[in-house]
Amino acid sequence: MRPAQGAQLESIPIPAFGPSDVLVRVRAASICGTDLHIYHWDQWSASRIRPPMTFGHEFCGAIEKIGSEVEALRAGDFVSAEMHVNCGHCRACHAGQPHLCRNVKIIGIDADGCFAEFVRIPARNIWKIDAAIPEHYAAILDPLGNAVHTVLAGEIAGQTVAITGCGPIGLMAIAVARACGCSTIFATEINAHRRALAKRMGADEVLDPRSHDPVARVLEGTHQDGVDVLLEMSGNPSGIRQGFQMLRQGGRASLLGIPSEAVTLDLLSDVIFKGATVQGIYGRKMFQTWEQMSSLLKSGRLNLEPLFNERLSLDRFTEAFKLLETGQAGKILFYPNGDAA
Amino acid sequence: MRPAQGAQLESIPIPAFGPSDVLVRVRAASICGTDLHIYHWDQWSASRIRPPMTFGHEFCGAIEKIGSEVEALRAGDFVSAEMHVNCGHCRACHAGQPHLCRNVKIIGIDADGCFAEFVRIPARNIWKIDAAIPEHYAAILDPLGNAVHTVLAGEIAGQTVAITGCGPIGLMAIAVARACGCSTIFATEINAHRRALAKRMGADEVLDPRSHDPVARVLEGTHQDGVDVLLEMSGNPSGIRQGFQMLRQGGRASLLGIPSEAVTLDLLSDVIFKGATVQGIYGRKMFQTWEQMSSLLKSGRLNLEPLFNERLSLDRFTEAFKLLETGQAGKILFYPNGDAA
Amino acid sequence: MRPAQGAQLESIPIPAFGPSDVLVRVRAASICGTDLHIYHWDQWSASRIRPPMTFGHEFCGAIEKIGSEVEALRAGDFVSAEMHVNCGHCRACHAGQPHLCRNVKIIGIDADGCFAEFVRIPARNIWKIDAAIPEHYAAILDPLGNAVHTVLAGEIAGQTVAITGCGPIGLMAIAVARACGCSTIFATEINAHRRALAKRMGADEVLDPRSHDPVARVLEGTHQDGVDVLLEMSGNPSGIRQGFQMLRQGGRASLLGIPSEAVTLDLLSDVIFKGATVQGIYGRKMFQTWEQMSSLLKSGRLNLEPLFNERLSLDRFTEAFKLLETGQAGKILFYPNGDAA
Amino acid sequence: MRPAQGAQLESIPIPAFGPSDVLVRVRAASICGTDLHIYHWDQWSASRIRPPMTFGHEFCGAIEKIGSEVEALRAGDFVSAEMHVNCGHCRACHAGQPHLCRNVKIIGIDADGCFAEFVRIPARNIWKIDAAIPEHYAAILDPLGNAVHTVLAGEIAGQTVAITGCGPIGLMAIAVARACGCSTIFATEINAHRRALAKRMGADEVLDPRSHDPVARVLEGTHQDGVDVLLEMSGNPSGIRQGFQMLRQGGRASLLGIPSEAVTLDLLSDVIFKGATVQGIYGRKMFQTWEQMSSLLKSGRLNLEPLFNERLSLDRFTEAFKLLETGQAGKILFYPNGDAA
Repeated sequence: MRPAQGAQLESIPIPAFGPSDVLVRVRAASICGTDLHIYHWDQWSASRIRPPMTFGHEFCGAIEKIGSEVEALRAGDFVSAEMHVNCGHCRACHAGQPHLCRNVKIIGIDADGCFAEFVRIPARNIWKIDAAIPEHYAAILDPLGNAVHTVLAGEIAGQTVAITGCGPIGLMAIAVARACGCSTIFATEINAHRRALAKRMGADEVLDPRSHDPVARVLEGTHQDGVDVLLEMSGNPSGIRQGFQMLRQGGRASLLGIPSEAVTLDLLSDVIFKGATVQGIYGRKMFQTWEQMSSLLKSGRLNLEPLFNERLSLDRFTEAFKLLETGQAGKILFYPNGDAA
Repeated sequence: MRPAQGAQLESIPIPAFGPSDVLVRVRAASICGTDLHIYHWDQWSASRIRPPMTFGHEFCGAIEKIGSEVEALRAGDFVSAEMHVNCGHCRACHAGQPHLCRNVKIIGIDADGCFAEFVRIPARNIWKIDAAIPEHYAAILDPLGNAVHTVLAGEIAGQTVAITGCGPIGLMAIAVARACGCSTIFATEINAHRRALAKRMGADEVLDPRSHDPVARVLEGTHQDGVDVLLEMSGNPSGIRQGFQMLRQGGRASLLGIPSEAVTLDLLSDVIFKGATVQGIYGRKMFQTWEQMSSLLKSGRLNLEPLFNERLSLDRFTEAFKLLETGQAGKILFYPNGDAA
Repeated sequence: MRPAQGAQLESIPIPAFGPSDVLVRVRAASICGTDLHIYHWDQWSASRIRPPMTFGHEFCGAIEKIGSEVEALRAGDFVSAEMHVNCGHCRACHAGQPHLCRNVKIIGIDADGCFAEFVRIPARNIWKIDAAIPEHYAAILDPLGNAVHTVLAGEIAGQTVAITGCGPIGLMAIAVARACGCSTIFATEINAHRRALAKRMGADEVLDPRSHDPVARVLEGTHQDGVDVLLEMSGNPSGIRQGFQMLRQGGRASLLGIPSEAVTLDLLSDVIFKGATVQGIYGRKMFQTWEQMSSLLKSGRLNLEPLFNERLSLDRFTEAFKLLETGQAGKILFYPNGDAA
Repeated sequence: MRPAQGAQLESIPIPAFGPSDVLVRVRAASICGTDLHIYHWDQWSASRIRPPMTFGHEFCGAIEKIGSEVEALRAGDFVSAEMHVNCGHCRACHAGQPHLCRNVKIIGIDADGCFAEFVRIPARNIWKIDAAIPEHYAAILDPLGNAVHTVLAGEIAGQTVAITGCGPIGLMAIAVARACGCSTIFATEINAHRRALAKRMGADEVLDPRSHDPVARVLEGTHQDGVDVLLEMSGNPSGIRQGFQMLRQGGRASLLGIPSEAVTLDLLSDVIFKGATVQGIYGRKMFQTWEQMSSLLKSGRLNLEPLFNERLSLDRFTEAFKLLETGQAGKILFYPNGDAA
């Protein structure tokens, strides 16, 4: 695929790989919202991406070959990967926050990704997949990791939760929060299809912010205290402001949704006098989040089935992107090396 | 009841109460292991208790009367109470750890308790019970709080857990850990009846330390890493040592079980080189634990039914204590003011 | 004093006090920025304050009398007080965050304060002052507590720090951060007098944001990483934005300054993708901050002398408020019961 | 050097190095207590070390050559190194605790170390040294890191501290705790020379546990509360027990000292009912500790001069080890490539 207003399916050589890399044969790949931006070649894409490039960063597959310095991995291992490659020597890397590396290179954005038969990955970024985890779940560990990272960025057991925005990651966050012992979950979403999914994923109350006042309802449902935890998944300025108004004094707001513009906040009431803790969430912790996510999946604590719909061969990518634009699709899987399961 | 080798049921005046106190009419009360120590008038009891005294510290009931300075509570409110009354001015109280007050007075040990028709409680120690919480659960919030405090003293979601000792609090801890998204739970217990209960509460593997090597089994079940979290509920020196050997490098050990003697540990291997975090757990956090516990109960995340058996009027206390000594009983409830539900 | 465009000095009765209160004879009191708002009777004051009322909430003094239920305090004890009186039963109080109580009453705002010979304080809000702490320091524990709370809201040892805004609390924060082992301190301030004070308090670099680009300078001074910790003390929207731009990936931003309007932020770059932790800071932790502050003062770790200037009798309050409006004054002390020391 | 009852100085080839390694020309190296164990070829050494091997793991030097895959390092860079090489894929590594890797290899114990002209180090273990840090300090970052890790394993600002055992790391911990704003420091040590050093490093009270009751004195000096933080540096069972008795309810105990036998503790009083948090401390956090330590050194917050005495060429190693056995020496530096500075 060569991004530049849409994409093309092309034959390219199998990627070369170095002594510390592995080559993975892609079994299944999934499309992220970021891929949609690249597909549309928006301003951000044009400034960051250097075409021709293969995109895609959510996948699972089997190791085909390993570099000469690689230990602890073998050809045939079934794996996924953390696609954020950190530098190891900036202040964030040194501070135990490699997921916040300021020199990060993202495979599928800054280097060739997984919408292909093969993808090259540094060995230290590989994640081995437990046999108990279903293959289609293994293909979406990247966004599931975003959800797990957001939910577990603070206390969740026994906490009331508001989730603003029910795209795929918001929907996953509902399932994760519930599996981790949260109390009442309030979710907001403008898309009716997604509201229905939010109910199926386990939200206690799903609100349409255009027809109700979600803030009033959440306060009413929490003895006027507000929720303990806000998981912001909309990126919408109005959704963000509503989320902060739903938050109790001393609550936690974890922000993952990506606003496309600057956001005006009532910092005094909603953050300072509220004594709120606000966390920017980016990527997944390397590799705490991967461990947590794998444990939750292995022990069968998460039912993500409602999220999946189409499974397509890679040549049907145009169809896939069209479907995603409607907001009706959950996660669409590609099978670059053959039949969908 | 007057402790001194057994106990007596006596008529005593309704307790007097001050301007900041409330008087509660006890609905249901439950027996703690500590009450058994008092009943047997062991060395600890003889040194601490000043008879005649009414004991008992697990209960629920309705407020009968309130002191002149009491706000935010009303006669008729259905309540339980934190029975540890802290001083408010020692270093631990000032450090935000009132549950570790060095001048703590415990109602039912240092002042008249709840094995009676009425009990006096300082208003700030009262906990209002949500209408969604069943009455018999409301009677055991004190020990359930111990279990919740222990489980939630660190990360639990996605963590593998070993619980050494399955008395009532160990059994509750299984249910709590599971509700909060833990991964595999290994439990150890020598009593067959309790092992069966541990399974019913949700443990994945229940081991008899006398017929298996529980350490070898836990290591085998965790890729030789050991568990992320040890919840020590036995107080048994050998159980404690086994627990530490089950713990992974960098794991968390939360100790609640009460050893009756000094314990010899391989501090170097099991704590220092392991980089373990060991936490002494005492009481319940005031009132974070109460909030967490109430939220878990309100949202129906905990099934504690297997723990309950006998419900008795207060005059059958001798029968109750006999039953408890066998180790077969779970939680026994008294109804000092009339019929068991 | 009766606020309503200025203030008046009046004779009023010695306050009545209840069984859980103490009456304190004020030795020295200090003026807070909030008092200046009240003095000017701005919109916030008019909406919140119910005159006639005595204002003032920073003080020290000796206990004159104690209520009938008060233990652990004696007439003659030299004390200050946490003036935020929390309810004890809202979600924040239950969560161990009484400083974020949603029903808080502030003595000096919602009840008669300390610009008077006597002030009534609930016994549990009293803080006994160690004999090693100088009297004039004891009069400003309230704002010093704000500074300590902000600095110690996260890691500080070995961290690079930016402090935006060098009013009295910003200046105190410089001394506190330095005493607690921080690395380089960058401070920004538009007032030249305060910039000079910032140097004296221990800032390594003090920048005038009107004549330099403080963001560029801080990045240059931190290998382009940015600082580990932002302590926002200006409340100025532009200062807040600059502060966030100075912050490294994964850094901590603790916000104490009070913006008078909504603030527009580049949430995506400055919080979300940055993985920042943003904390609203309000009041002081009850009573962790008081312990920390007392320990720092007792062990002589803080030199706050540059902050003090005028010491006046209470009848010279007009002079004091005028001086404060110029921004030249540090902390001004009143002595309602007689001669300044 | 070939350990086996003493050591020998031999000519060996310059180490080979792989594509991800660097070769460092050693400028100065220092002797650790562990080296003394190896020198004496005790039981632990005989079971772990595979001679012939070069030992030594505390050093600084200049990069001589870099492997073909190494970025961000250059020949000539002045560096030290984290000598614990972690596997990257065990549970602790995945949990963000690489310093607790269960497959750790230690350079100088499991591979050739730094008592030589050249040492091979994996590039990711190299730590670049800031130009502001004196060379002799750069040679002891490994043990200084132990001290910093121990002190900063929890809150330290405004905390009272007991340090049991004043060997080199205990002495460094005094300086670090003081630089980070701790309150009173009580230190215990049986060696008079080290007690004198403890005073010079900044301890407020230095106690000889053989002539005083140090527990009684610490309780007396803390209003009978006990200290907030115990830093255990002795490894002595009796010292450890005294340390726990000095600790307040809810305090932190960080254990670094290495006991040579099992330790019997009063777990109930000293850990469980005390609600203590006990931390095993091993190595240094990779690389949070290195950042904190470098920041403290760069900003001149630590005076370690009293710790240094002899500076020797490598052929005088017998003399060095003899001196260390007396317990009189602080840190002894070797200069394998030429004259001591």
